[in-house]
Amino acid sequence: MKALLYQGERDIRYESFPDPTPASPLDAIVRMDRCGICGSDLHIYHGQGFSPDIGFCVGHEAVGEVVEVGSGVRRLKPGDRVMLSAAVGCGNCVNCLAGEVNLCLTGGAGCYGLSHRLEGCQAEAIRVPAADFNAALIPEGLTADQALLLTDNLPTAWYGLRNAEVGPGKTVVVVGCGPIGLMAVEGAFVLGAARVFAVDLVAERRALAESLGATAFGSDAVERIAEATSGRMADCAVEAVGADATIQLAMRCVGKMGVVSVIGVNQSRAFDFPMGVAFIKNLTFRIGTCSVPKWWPELVPLIQGGRLKPERYISHRMPLSEGAEAYRLFDAREAGALKMVLTG
Amino acid sequence: MKALLYQGERDIRYESFPDPTPASPLDAIVRMDRCGICGSDLHIYHGQGFSPDIGFCVGHEAVGEVVEVGSGVRRLKPGDRVMLSAAVGCGNCVNCLAGEVNLCLTGGAGCYGLSHRLEGCQAEAIRVPAADFNAALIPEGLTADQALLLTDNLPTAWYGLRNAEVGPGKTVVVVGCGPIGLMAVEGAFVLGAARVFAVDLVAERRALAESLGATAFGSDAVERIAEATSGRMADCAVEAVGADATIQLAMRCVGKMGVVSVIGVNQSRAFDFPMGVAFIKNLTFRIGTCSVPKWWPELVPLIQGGRLKPERYISHRMPLSEGAEAYRLFDAREAGALKMVLTG
Amino acid sequence: MKALLYQGERDIRYESFPDPTPASPLDAIVRMDRCGICGSDLHIYHGQGFSPDIGFCVGHEAVGEVVEVGSGVRRLKPGDRVMLSAAVGCGNCVNCLAGEVNLCLTGGAGCYGLSHRLEGCQAEAIRVPAADFNAALIPEGLTADQALLLTDNLPTAWYGLRNAEVGPGKTVVVVGCGPIGLMAVEGAFVLGAARVFAVDLVAERRALAESLGATAFGSDAVERIAEATSGRMADCAVEAVGADATIQLAMRCVGKMGVVSVIGVNQSRAFDFPMGVAFIKNLTFRIGTCSVPKWWPELVPLIQGGRLKPERYISHRMPLSEGAEAYRLFDAREAGALKMVLTG
Amino acid sequence: MKALLYQGERDIRYESFPDPTPASPLDAIVRMDRCGICGSDLHIYHGQGFSPDIGFCVGHEAVGEVVEVGSGVRRLKPGDRVMLSAAVGCGNCVNCLAGEVNLCLTGGAGCYGLSHRLEGCQAEAIRVPAADFNAALIPEGLTADQALLLTDNLPTAWYGLRNAEVGPGKTVVVVGCGPIGLMAVEGAFVLGAARVFAVDLVAERRALAESLGATAFGSDAVERIAEATSGRMADCAVEAVGADATIQLAMRCVGKMGVVSVIGVNQSRAFDFPMGVAFIKNLTFRIGTCSVPKWWPELVPLIQGGRLKPERYISHRMPLSEGAEAYRLFDAREAGALKMVLTG
Repeated sequence: MKALLYQGERDIRYESFPDPTPASPLDAIVRMDRCGICGSDLHIYHGQGFSPDIGFCVGHEAVGEVVEVGSGVRRLKPGDRVMLSAAVGCGNCVNCLAGEVNLCLTGGAGCYGLSHRLEGCQAEAIRVPAADFNAALIPEGLTADQALLLTDNLPTAWYGLRNAEVGPGKTVVVVGCGPIGLMAVEGAFVLGAARVFAVDLVAERRALAESLGATAFGSDAVERIAEATSGRMADCAVEAVGADATIQLAMRCVGKMGVVSVIGVNQSRAFDFPMGVAFIKNLTFRIGTCSVPKWWPELVPLIQGGRLKPERYISHRMPLSEGAEAYRLFDAREAGALKMVLTG
Repeated sequence: MKALLYQGERDIRYESFPDPTPASPLDAIVRMDRCGICGSDLHIYHGQGFSPDIGFCVGHEAVGEVVEVGSGVRRLKPGDRVMLSAAVGCGNCVNCLAGEVNLCLTGGAGCYGLSHRLEGCQAEAIRVPAADFNAALIPEGLTADQALLLTDNLPTAWYGLRNAEVGPGKTVVVVGCGPIGLMAVEGAFVLGAARVFAVDLVAERRALAESLGATAFGSDAVERIAEATSGRMADCAVEAVGADATIQLAMRCVGKMGVVSVIGVNQSRAFDFPMGVAFIKNLTFRIGTCSVPKWWPELVPLIQGGRLKPERYISHRMPLSEGAEAYRLFDAREAGALKMVLTG
Repeated sequence: MKALLYQGERDIRYESFPDPTPASPLDAIVRMDRCGICGSDLHIYHGQGFSPDIGFCVGHEAVGEVVEVGSGVRRLKPGDRVMLSAAVGCGNCVNCLAGEVNLCLTGGAGCYGLSHRLEGCQAEAIRVPAADFNAALIPEGLTADQALLLTDNLPTAWYGLRNAEVGPGKTVVVVGCGPIGLMAVEGAFVLGAARVFAVDLVAERRALAESLGATAFGSDAVERIAEATSGRMADCAVEAVGADATIQLAMRCVGKMGVVSVIGVNQSRAFDFPMGVAFIKNLTFRIGTCSVPKWWPELVPLIQGGRLKPERYISHRMPLSEGAEAYRLFDAREAGALKMVLTG
Repeated sequence: MKALLYQGERDIRYESFPDPTPASPLDAIVRMDRCGICGSDLHIYHGQGFSPDIGFCVGHEAVGEVVEVGSGVRRLKPGDRVMLSAAVGCGNCVNCLAGEVNLCLTGGAGCYGLSHRLEGCQAEAIRVPAADFNAALIPEGLTADQALLLTDNLPTAWYGLRNAEVGPGKTVVVVGCGPIGLMAVEGAFVLGAARVFAVDLVAERRALAESLGATAFGSDAVERIAEATSGRMADCAVEAVGADATIQLAMRCVGKMGVVSVIGVNQSRAFDFPMGVAFIKNLTFRIGTCSVPKWWPELVPLIQGGRLKPERYISHRMPLSEGAEAYRLFDAREAGALKMVLTG
């Protein structure tokens, strides 16, 4: 088959790759229909990935059709249209059974497309481990695009909001207005936020946040939020970038009893945590990754009811064969690049 | 002064009444600017009020201007524009301090306009007990109409929703689409409901509910909700009528793990509770009255942020002197009567 | 094999019965090691069971050893020592996956020993449907007796406490001091109750409740609780009897903002719900059945840590062949009968 | 009057000081009956206090008798026996009204005994600002010693436990077994912990923790907790020291989904936060100070019911005139110094 392979810094290539086969009776093989490029894929693209491997298949967001199932697969069968969870668990340990897939205790695969350990989803076909657990039928009434955004981006934005304790009447700040940040803006209103401030240095992305109802700021966000709140600052912050400076910014944007939730991927080796500020504010700080399927029971009816429209952030739709160019555009934020979808 | 007095069944009269004076150093006198007629006032109007008194001043919803304060009042001063809480507490007992004003332990006044115990708000001037506690400045940016709806109706609708455990992704049914029911429909979406079903026998009110995004049903609500949910029924029900039949209807509209919250006033002496149905569904059932100020910290920013617009349910605005006609219209649901506002 | 069969009112017989066999590849057969008689078995014993069937095998509490598994069973194998969940679900529907086994949407078996639909556990061998889901290995460090009490009684008591919103500093009343009521007393303290009142008409059972730290009352419970709380009454009530009178008693025992949780089985056809009292108290009322395995993650470590000792309520241990006499003793509350265990 | 004054590093003196007088009509003057020395007083003692002032009166824990009230004080009168809240708020801002006294928005006094701004409680008489709000009658049935421990230590321990999300079935680690740490151990069991690990380098304090039911470890705590939990580590950590190393230790002691709550006072200017570890664990981190009166409604009934006995940590009782020696003993941990009480 053909797939996008990581061959070195800023070097993603569309090349031939061995067809996947089940590694256990619980696995399924899925023919990719469409897949997404995620902001966290850019860490790999920049040569700052999560393993020293080369030549592995990248990507962790996909929907497609089941073409083969192992003998132990009970819920899925060939022909089923499914969405995959970017977070991959064993389905059998205490954490998986409690819905915390990404905290799987068995040292399972974790995520597609980070190394050769579990090849990625930007490929014509994908091996899905413990398929009954890590894939689900595309819910009734959802388009394939909507399902694609349920494989990672929307649940991650939502998890970020819940970790930030966003609720009715709250003032919320979202730092970073890429696709996940914009979904956080949209989701904050669904969760009852009274006001949402969105922070990004790119004017175009600020405009998108404002179109969703947010008030958007650039580099002077702290001062502007102070003005807008008579100095009380925000109640909740979702950080969707991952840099040290933006995490520290998020901490400054909240006031007393503030809650900061980081969903950006931070690779800092020595993060300078402003303990004095945290102490005075009685701060709550959370960081981690999202157990994707845990949030589907809340998110699916919200999409079905028309209250969340994550597909609106798709800016480009290109064939898998043009994946290298898609990465380049997304990384450069050229041509209004927001959510990039690759088709099989 | 002039005031609306209850003189018997369907006999509300605009008559002279003694000017109110402080009964304690903690009291304030407020000149009424505008006041509302509440659905629960109709119980009194129908001769099924909460005391045997005659000739008392009715009404429990008002905003106005402070004209006099007792020596112990600290937060308010003459000239302040205030909104009153329909629920009146001592401000000093454990329940009041915990925000549960309507559960005040001192056997306090409870509510305006139910008897001679605490004369009502449909009057040119109002005595406010423990005024620091039972009145608040009209919040910045709110109109007098918006503040008026914060004195009872909107907090009651909101309390009903919270008691029904309405939250993100939930399917919600609201039984009864008077002003409070409509506010419950609007609020359900702010709390993240995926779908809202509204039930009323009056087509005009169903149309209003639909204009807010609900799907509205009449007498065949149970069957239609079953259809729309593939038999799973709603997660949450807010009952805003108070009749035995509508409370039982609400119980039938929810499914397993359902939560039913009654905010209508029920005066039944022998309510037949369907214990078998409740048992099979693992039902939660709640009934009570709203501690109005408890909800202001959530509701005020939601109005300031434009997310709740309770003033849109005002259908009529009439001078206090025409109060008798306002009651008649409201009771008869004539001329599209919804929220009736009387001006001072 | 031999089993206890329901042959009519107060007529339980130890008789031959066909050996169970798997009805699906997901089933397992378990050889009973010990089983319990539950208070709800007495409804059947009294001829007021949940089906018109005769000759079915009774009982829904057991631990034992797996002797056979269907081809689709993944987690269990012959030789495993397991505890069964009294609540039996399909393991595949939305409610089962969310842990609400007893609200299984597939119209599954529900519970052992209520009819021929799923034969009971007071038998030498038991068919366990969807065995991976409805049975679990006996947790490390637990005795077979402790595990037996995890199959129904302790989770039910705990679920009752959680439904009553028992927490730190609360005043709790437990109505009915049979085995489940006593476990509720014990569990209330683990959940942080400041005070526990226990109500039972039997002096011996009151003494047991007092030995656990409760203050126990008989027929004058309402007056005594009023005295002990200066009229504020309890915060939370767990009703573990199921009669109309005891449910109404529980409602009188709580004060404003009270929460009443019924875990007794009520078979009333016309329950007179005191709506006026509920309205004035802002009451929360809950009734239902327990999704047994949902509570194991909390309860297992509490037993392992020595904080809950449910085995202490076992009063009798008799061979299965003496089951008829065990039922008689339990029903008559003779000889200090509390928790009856039958051995295989 | 006489009082303990801070005159420089390790220089606390019992000296004459001007008698306090009301600074506002809302103030009261309280004659000290007994007061405590808190671990955070040692920061001042070590010359690392929270202001550059010299000669101010120290201490923030006291109970005593009201001897004078301003004209605006409503709830207290001379002769009342009261306990003071170490956290001092205006009683009038949004945060105070919501119970978050220590987050008072008016830039109020904050705490006794940190500077000349609000003189301390280790004095024969104390000025209490906004006395209706910042003092309370000693609750019925409580001794003066118990009330003294409600002024700061016990609420702080409890707040630490709640911030660590300690609940039924949890495995909890408490780092630091001074008086507050020991109260955290005791409180963890009241909140339902299945197991408590206590960490301290002093054998005597470990023995005290074990007498409360904990398993205590010294410098090899991480390894020992790993062994005891089969590598899963604790669910919740309360850090009651405040050093960088002990905070980092607490983070290592929790496992996936861990919650770390810091109640020790950290004065680090550059705290190295292990972001990678936090990310992998999906960590929640909280730090702040306790709004003392917020927790009284939970703690008072628990002491009244005999479930918490904070007075057992009192090791020394000395007259105020020997305060300098009391500080020396406490700082040196000599003579089993734990909770030091000074009498008026």
